[in-house]
Amino acid sequence: MNNALFPWLILVPCVTQYEIHQLERDQQIQLLDEITTISHFIDHHFNPDKINVGAIGNIVRQLHVHIVARNEDDPCWPGVVWGVKEHKSYSQQQVAVIAENLTNYLRQQTHLAYVAQI
Amino acid sequence: MNNALFPWLILVPCVTQYEIHQLERDQQIQLLDEITTISHFIDHHFNPDKINVGAIGNIVRQLHVHIVARNEDDPCWPGVVWGVKEHKSYSQQQVAVIAENLTNYLRQQTHLAYVAQI
Repeated sequence: MNNALFPWLILVPCVTQYEIHQLERDQQIQLLDEITTISHFIDHHFNPDKINVGAIGNIVRQLHVHIVARNEDDPCWPGVVWGVKEHKSYSQQQVAVIAENLTNYLRQQTHLAYVAQI
Repeated sequence: MNNALFPWLILVPCVTQYEIHQLERDQQIQLLDEITTISHFIDHHFNPDKINVGAIGNIVRQLHVHIVARNEDDPCWPGVVWGVKEHKSYSQQQVAVIAENLTNYLRQQTHLAYVAQI
């Protein structure tokens, strides 16, 4: 998410279902593994006080999972980030650094079949 | 959750970790299965427009997962329910009916080892 106030990644599974419980079990487990991988990346790179994980989809129905790094001194703490107006854009350079760090991290997760094509 | 405006169940795994990605994989998969089971129960009994699933824990750190039935005519739509003040208590009778329906539903899920003791 282009909001530098909260490190915030969104998983968008390539599926047609709108809800996690509607997925086949192997799809659910892949999503679980992806949530785990991205949460570990966020822990490792941003060292947050808490990680918020949410599958909401009230506005954008396509299934997506928010994984948000939260800190006790961030502008919304202890409230949730969804629906808030606080915003600060990243620079292109900041986005490039995060993308490179994430790509490198995923490439190291060689036990995960679904990152083989990265 | 004692708020009749939103059918809202909370899973509280008997674990010491604060984050889903810190769980052992078998614990994660059990939690995934429990989320799926409760989401199906909510679908079946409340027929909502959307289900919101969230592991937040900014205020109460003990790991817990919210599963919330949302409807396009509910008081917070399309915003999230966390942190809102809209509230309407259930009667004791309403709580008893939901608890009985949930217990009966779980007893039918005989393929799930962890409901055997219910």
